[in-house]
Order: sequence, then C-alpha cells, then structure tokens
Amino acid sequence: MNAITSQIDSSERPRVVVIGGGFGGLHAARQLGNRPVNVTLIDRRNFHLFQPLLYQVATGGLSPGDIASPLRAVLHRFGNINVVQATVTGFDPARQVVKTDKRDFPYDYLVVAVGAENSYFGNEQWGAAAPALKSVEDALAIRQRIFSAFEQAELCDDPQKRKVLQTFVVIGGGPTGVELAGALTELVRETLADDFRSIDPRESRIVLLEGGARLLPSFPESLSEKATRRLHKMGVEILTRALVVNIHGSVVRFRRAGQESSLEAAAVLWTAGVKASPLAELLASAAGARTDKSGRVIVGPDLTLPGFPNIYLVGDMAHFSHGLPEPLPGVAPVAMQQGRYAARAILRRLKGKSVSPFRYVYKGNLAVIGRNHAIADFGGVRLSGFPAWILWVLVHIAYLVEFDNRMLVMFQWAWNYLTRKRGARLIIGVDPKNSTDPH
Amino acid sequence: MNAITSQIDSSERPRVVVIGGGFGGLHAARQLGNRPVNVTLIDRRNFHLFQPLLYQVATGGLSPGDIASPLRAVLHRFGNINVVQATVTGFDPARQVVKTDKRDFPYDYLVVAVGAENSYFGNEQWGAAAPALKSVEDALAIRQRIFSAFEQAELCDDPQKRKVLQTFVVIGGGPTGVELAGALTELVRETLADDFRSIDPRESRIVLLEGGARLLPSFPESLSEKATRRLHKMGVEILTRALVVNIHGSVVRFRRAGQESSLEAAAVLWTAGVKASPLAELLASAAGARTDKSGRVIVGPDLTLPGFPNIYLVGDMAHFSHGLPEPLPGVAPVAMQQGRYAARAILRRLKGKSVSPFRYVYKGNLAVIGRNHAIADFGGVRLSGFPAWILWVLVHIAYLVEFDNRMLVMFQWAWNYLTRKRGARLIIGVDPKNSTDPH
Repeated sequence: MNAITSQIDSSERPRVVVIGGGFGGLHAARQLGNRPVNVTLIDRRNFHLFQPLLYQVATGGLSPGDIASPLRAVLHRFGNINVVQATVTGFDPARQVVKTDKRDFPYDYLVVAVGAENSYFGNEQWGAAAPALKSVEDALAIRQRIFSAFEQAELCDDPQKRKVLQTFVVIGGGPTGVELAGALTELVRETLADDFRSIDPRESRIVLLEGGARLLPSFPESLSEKATRRLHKMGVEILTRALVVNIHGSVVRFRRAGQESSLEAAAVLWTAGVKASPLAELLASAAGARTDKSGRVIVGPDLTLPGFPNIYLVGDMAHFSHGLPEPLPGVAPVAMQQGRYAARAILRRLKGKSVSPFRYVYKGNLAVIGRNHAIADFGGVRLSGFPAWILWVLVHIAYLVEFDNRMLVMFQWAWNYLTRKRGARLIIGVDPKNSTDPH
Repeated sequence: MNAITSQIDSSERPRVVVIGGGFGGLHAARQLGNRPVNVTLIDRRNFHLFQPLLYQVATGGLSPGDIASPLRAVLHRFGNINVVQATVTGFDPARQVVKTDKRDFPYDYLVVAVGAENSYFGNEQWGAAAPALKSVEDALAIRQRIFSAFEQAELCDDPQKRKVLQTFVVIGGGPTGVELAGALTELVRETLADDFRSIDPRESRIVLLEGGARLLPSFPESLSEKATRRLHKMGVEILTRALVVNIHGSVVRFRRAGQESSLEAAAVLWTAGVKASPLAELLASAAGARTDKSGRVIVGPDLTLPGFPNIYLVGDMAHFSHGLPEPLPGVAPVAMQQGRYAARAILRRLKGKSVSPFRYVYKGNLAVIGRNHAIADFGGVRLSGFPAWILWVLVHIAYLVEFDNRMLVMFQWAWNYLTRKRGARLIIGVDPKNSTDPH
C-alpha cells in the first residue's frame, strides 16, 4: 500500500480526483479546498498556465514564468489537496480508478478537465509547418521563428527572400488569431522599428486568413467590423472566406473567391481549430459515452457522464447544450464556472442535498486588438477602443491566479505600455517533443 | 557586394568588428557607440545574458527573460552599430577578415570577447550527468532536474530512493557553487517547505564538494570562513579537499582524506571549472599566438594579440598577467574594464594618440550566500552578512544592462524577498543540443 492511498484510507474522507490543472480543474480544486474531502489534482505539468496570454510569450512581451503559476504554490494552503504530476493513461469507471504512468488513483468522485488541443481538421501533417499556440513550448518555438526571421532578413542580400523573411501568416480569425496578428503588427511597426540596419521591420507583411465571412464570429457583427477596421488601420492584411488547402514548408495555399493562391512566409501560425484532448475519447469509450465531432464528451444537465453520476466533465472537453441553441464554447469563463459547479455539486451530494442543473452565466466576451484597443460584448452593452482595452487588462489581471504573477504582469504591462518595449525576445532552444496538450 | 559592407565602404569610416555580446564585447561596443567608426557586433545569440544571476533561473527565482536583454534593444540608440546574429567559424588575421556561418566580415580593428565555457578537465563525458551553469538552456535544464526530483519523490514509495531524489550535489566551492548551494537550501527549507504531502522538502540534503582546502579561495580567509559557517548553519553539507574521481549517472565518486566515497543524487551540478571558448584556440593558431592551460590567449600589455596590434582580446578568453603575481581572473568587472579599454584604445589610435598599457582597477569582490547574506572584500574593507547582501543587490541591479530588466528584477527580488516565493518553477522542455557557450 502506498503513501497516498494509506493516508486517504486512514482519514476515511470521500476521495475526489481532479484531472487537469487548467481553469476548470483548478477552480474545482480550489472550491474543494479545506472541505471535508481528500482531493488529488493530477496534471502532466507542474504549473497552471494562463493561456489567454500565451500570445504575449510568443511575441516577446512576457516570459513563460509570468503567465504560469506552480500548481503546488497555488494550492499550497489547502491541506486536503494533493498535487500529483503524472500522465493519465486510462480510466476504469466501473472500478472507480484513474490509471496514470505513476500509479492508479481510486476515487469516489472524479472531475475530468483535460481541456483541448489544436486540431488541423485531419491535416495533422500541417503542424510542423504551422505551429499552434497551446503550450509554453509552442509559444517559445513561435517566438524563435519570429525573431530568427528578422535576424536572417538583416543578413539576406536577396530582396525576394528578404520579403519572405518579413512575411507572417496567421491562420484563423478568432480571438487568438486577432490577438496574435495585432501583437505581431505592433512588434514590427513599433518595438523592432529601429533595431535593424539593412532591413526596415515596418515593411513586414502580417496576413490574417479567416475561413468564414468575418473575423471574430463569436462577437456581434458591429464589433467584429470595428475590430476589422482597427486591424486594417494597424496594417494587418485581412483575407476572409480564405480556405486553407495546404501548408507545406513555408508555403500556405488557400482558396478564395473560386481561385487558389499561395503565400510564402517566415512563419505560418495556426489558430484555426481545437479539438478535445485525446483523453476525452479514452474516457468516452471506457464509459460508453458519446462524443461530438470535436471529440468533446456529451454531458448531462449536471455535467456528469451519462450512467456515471460520480464523474463530472468540465471545460473544453465537455459538450454541454441543454436548453441552448448551440453547445457552450471552449472558453475560460465556461471552464471556471463548470469547475466550481462540479465541486459544489459534489459537496452538496455528500451532504445528501439535491443539485440543480448547471447554468452558464454569460458575463461578457472580450478580445484585444492591440496595445490600447479591444472589443467587449456584454449582451446589451458593447464597448470598443481604449475603454474596452482597460477592461480587458483589468479582467485578465484579476484572473491571473496567483497574486505574485498578477503584480508582476501588471508591472510588465505598464512598462511595455509606456515604452513599447518587448524585453522577452530571447531566441532559446525549446524541445518541440514536449509540446503537447497541457494536461 | 552585400548590404553591410557596401554601407561601410560608402561611409569610409574605420570598421571595428566586435565578437561576443557578453560583458566584454558589450562594453566595448557601447564605448564605440556614436563615435566615428562603423561597428559590427557579432554574437551567436540575440541577447546579452547577465550570467551572475543564472543560478536564480536554475532555482526558479527568475525567468530567463529577466536576466537577458536583446542586444538590438541595448544598442538600438547607436546608429553606427550593426548587430549580427552569426556563428564565427574562423579568423584570417593576415587578410583582416572574420569568417562566420553567414558571411565574412572584414575589419580594420577587431575586438574578440568570446568568453569561456565549462571545463571538466578532460572528463567531458561527465557533462551529461553533471550539467554546468553557463547558458539559459543549462539553467532551464537544471531547474527541470531539481523540480522534477521533488515531483518524483512525492510519488515514491521506496524510502531509499526518496532519499536519493532529495539529495543534490554541487561540485565547486567558488562563487557560483556557493550561490547555487545557498539558493538550493533556501528553496528546500523555505519555498517548498509546505508544498508536498508525502515528503518533507526540509529533509533534503545539499552537499557542496570543493577540491581545495577552503570555499571561495579568491576571498580572504576570514571571509571564506564566515561564508562557510553561514552555509553550514543554513544546512549545507560542506566537504573540502574532496576530489571528484568520477561522475556517472546519478553517482559522484570522490576521494577525501585518502578514502574514496560516493554520493547518489537527484542532480549533480558542476561549477568547478571553466576554459576559454574554442574560438580562442582557433584565433591563437591562426595568429601563431600562445595559450595558457585554460585555453586563454596570452595578450600584450595593451590587450592586443602579439604581432597583430589591431586585434584586441578581452574578458575570460584573455590571459593578462603583466606586472601581476597571477593572471587576472575571469570575472565580469575585468571583462567590462578591458572592453572599455580596447574601445578607447582604438579611438585614441585612430586619432594618432598614444595608448598606455591596460591597468585593472580592483573595485572589490562579492559573493552572495543566501536571501540576506553575502560577503564583500574591498582590499582593506571587508563586509559580511546583511550589509554585504544589500551591497550585492545594489551592484547587481546597477549592472543589469537595460533599465527595463533592472526595474523588473528589482521588483521580483523585492517580492521574492518578502514572500520567499519562487514563481518561475516551470518544468518545461529545453533542448540541450543548443546548450553551448554563449558566443
């Protein structure tokens, strides 16, 4: 008998296992902190990653340490929570056991929040040519591509090649694509503007390809138009209704208005799609549950797995559509609310109380476009420009989990805002082998 | 004809090539900034690294971005300085050309400041088992070993194995070894103290092995004794006169008082020796110059290469002993003074003025032992404890090249000092293939 299970047995409290230290899992665990349950939080990584700011790491504005909090430090004050760094390898819902590469973890209640990873819609071979932005390693690899391109361009005598080295293509016009294109534009127009002698970074091309009819389709049309105008003004070339047909080496081929064109770029960045972590499929097949076309597991009104009332699924891996025109999107606020709901539901059920179905409270939708521009939608109220940007900054700082990081990032941002500098431009070696989903 | 050389030709100013963006090269370049010369600074990396704080990155106190400044940003305001990211592959002193992987660079004056790398004294195979602390990648790899060990220990049922996972050996009792051992001890005794459930990080062993009779041999004996007592009180096991005979896997074998012993550890960290960059040897053989047993090139009283009055060598790669009982040590103040001297000498000679020999001005010697303890030697005046630590903090902040980083690091330090937290504990994948000398 091992140390952890013997400790749990001796205390005879119900065992809750939470898988995933992202927004969903972390908020579930915190809600269970110092309550009469024994919690084990399992994650492949030893840190919570504030993914909404990963694009800042990729463009040299922040260091990985600024947007990551050690899970142990975040949960340190809850004596009833064990943090375990391990990779989940299987589920046995009948025996109530989670299998990992380290050992098995039996549970009375299970909260699964393993999130999503990038999807190339069946063209996974595009991944090498067009990295996506999901992990710290992804962000550092993208940073390396961007800054190396300028170093190469500075030394390049061939004007045609130099043009390619100063071209960047972002695929996907959702919030991440827009944020990345905006940050890249500011990087080349402001931060790097006077740093080179043979090239003019201002002449760089930032191209944003979107398959649909407009950018930011999750926002009302008026805000989406405002964002488009702003990006255009900043110098981003926006191509909507552009369907990528192939990415190979440095060349993107896409179809638009019946014609095929191609672009050659120093870096092609992919933000066009996500799918649930493969663990969602693993759990679904172990439990005989259904998944949607993005690999998300379809959950009941109380977020439980059909037939397994002690298994809760939260966040990007859960397909929840009860009473809604379409399933809830894979965004941080949904994951946080679901994580807290699952934890509260477990605590209520342990007391023999009833649990009402999950209801998502929409608190608004934000996207940042540049150093002092954002759009915000609160149903009735819509904001854009500087006021929306201030709101975006406040919301993001408020949600940075640890006070430590919050202060530091605020300080970094204030500094970057005043100076337009990006200090974290190191080109360092990162190992893409470790670049997988955060769970 | 390429862009850079044509530009230089057209201006007809003397061409100064500086190799290396460390302390020596950077201070030479800054001294030449906005003066009537065309300067090209060549470095393999795109950033200046503040090496004295690398141990903080290794122990999770700072992020790489905090102690690195983009060379382009640092030198941006000097219109006469080109920064080139390239790897030097050869020298042709007769033709006055530096060869790189990108192109050749002709020069009128050359400043070589390519620094040092780790030396295992002919046992280079120890490097895999006992990483050294010279590059950002080294620091991240060491960080990964340290924090992974605790994660593994937390899940380990075998008490013997757990002991090994909580043992850390630092080889070398110079400033880096002392700083690393001190930081590790604080990490396990304070930062991580309450973060685990199955293990007690306070029980970890930190062993410091030194081959000589005492720690910090570059300091007066009284200060060295004070540092030893302090480290001992903090819980570091200090073994002097311990000669490492082998390092393989996780086991260090060493000879002490005629007996061979061994230690098994989660991480063995090497700080015991450096040698000049291999480029020093390359230059020496191209110019028919002599090197010492550490691979440093023996320079004239004015830091020039014998027979080549237009080639200056500065910093860790230069052996300078004119009128001194022993050659100048490979420390940052020497490199900075030599870099500035070389730049001033070039400017004087261009005006036809004479140049006096280089004289090192000793301004003191500092080593930090912990969160609020250091030793300082100013020849006559000696300090230890908290006053010396405050001095250490002020000196290091003053020398952080860019104001940006200076403010941030000060803020981080203040925070870490107050909270004893170390936020930058991310275990991320780094590619050890890129882990080589900073030039």
